[in-house]
Amino acid sequence: MYKLSKNVEVSLTVIRRLPKYHRYLSDLLDKGTTRISSQELSILTGFTASQIRQDFNNFGGFGQQGYGYNVEDLQKELGKILGLDFKYNAVVVGAGNLGQAIANYKGFEDAGFKVLSLFDRNPRIFGLKIRNIEIRDMETIEEFIKENNVEIGIITTPKESAQEVADIYVKAGIKGIWNFAPTDFIVPDNVIVENVRLNESLFILSYFLKTLHQD
Amino acid sequence: MYKLSKNVEVSLTVIRRLPKYHRYLSDLLDKGTTRISSQELSILTGFTASQIRQDFNNFGGFGQQGYGYNVEDLQKELGKILGLDFKYNAVVVGAGNLGQAIANYKGFEDAGFKVLSLFDRNPRIFGLKIRNIEIRDMETIEEFIKENNVEIGIITTPKESAQEVADIYVKAGIKGIWNFAPTDFIVPDNVIVENVRLNESLFILSYFLKTLHQD
Repeated sequence: MYKLSKNVEVSLTVIRRLPKYHRYLSDLLDKGTTRISSQELSILTGFTASQIRQDFNNFGGFGQQGYGYNVEDLQKELGKILGLDFKYNAVVVGAGNLGQAIANYKGFEDAGFKVLSLFDRNPRIFGLKIRNIEIRDMETIEEFIKENNVEIGIITTPKESAQEVADIYVKAGIKGIWNFAPTDFIVPDNVIVENVRLNESLFILSYFLKTLHQD
Repeated sequence: MYKLSKNVEVSLTVIRRLPKYHRYLSDLLDKGTTRISSQELSILTGFTASQIRQDFNNFGGFGQQGYGYNVEDLQKELGKILGLDFKYNAVVVGAGNLGQAIANYKGFEDAGFKVLSLFDRNPRIFGLKIRNIEIRDMETIEEFIKENNVEIGIITTPKESAQEVADIYVKAGIKGIWNFAPTDFIVPDNVIVENVRLNESLFILSYFLKTLHQD
């Protein structure tokens, strides 16, 4: 269980639903919808209306009986809970296609996450720029992180290098690691690791495709 | 609940754990480990030993009292359950960095997923090749899918195009869609959609980073 500022303990399962609510509410805002009931949110999200009400109650409610939720207020509040009102500096280690794709994705920057630099060990790509973001020598990363107030370290290396990169990040004072390498690594308890498991997602698709073949 | 070939119903939560087990077992195999107990697997995976035993029981056991699990057998069996003994042809719509990163990632091909072509609407990149995989005109995709027995359609377009691409995939007979666009779209019930929510994953990291700032 995780402690919120309000001393409420909220499970990781609830927390993992928050970005989803935020996405649906942002889409509703884009469409000009001003208010929505938990029943309507249920249809959109696939979660039950009572689950939705319970989730929001963890964070202090937001809804009004008979009115539902004000879309703009709720989206803003969820954004604050998710820390989207902060600005984070990030770096990427592993300047291959995936690293470049992440550096190149303007959507992350719009949400407050700015990739300042890519790092790699391949001298042939040092100095190259992706959307004005320079690829630098891995040897200079620790200094760069400290000088530029970088809080998020992204790992897009092969799995064999992930632990080494994580160690460098920890030594340089990185607080959160966004890991795309298909492996686990060991970091101190106060460093947050969020994994993107592309292989595992693909295998789930494969599982269900296989069941189609069996029908 | 999902029906297995053995007429056992297994929850999506259990199914989502299988690729994780498969990854840990593959790593153990690489290290030359031949057998493992559910207790040891528990330490590796973070799931409880009883949950692990229960999960495997859904698929017919595999373990032996007092011996544990044969790593190679279990890895192979899980691979079969996940359909990794099948070969799938895939195409990517959206030949930007992310699409190219996916086409370029040899790990997917090693696991049986072969990207045959990328498709885009930008004529300036038609004919370019990523690791010998050609970028083609979106206008030719339906024919390509039908002629090449393509079962998986990958979407790496902006969210505004996702529904249109999904419609094209469905019309062309695609059975499974791997979606990276940060949105939902509507497909018939017999088409499987697996979403990779990069934004949502990043927002979870942001949430926990924010709690650090509050400490």
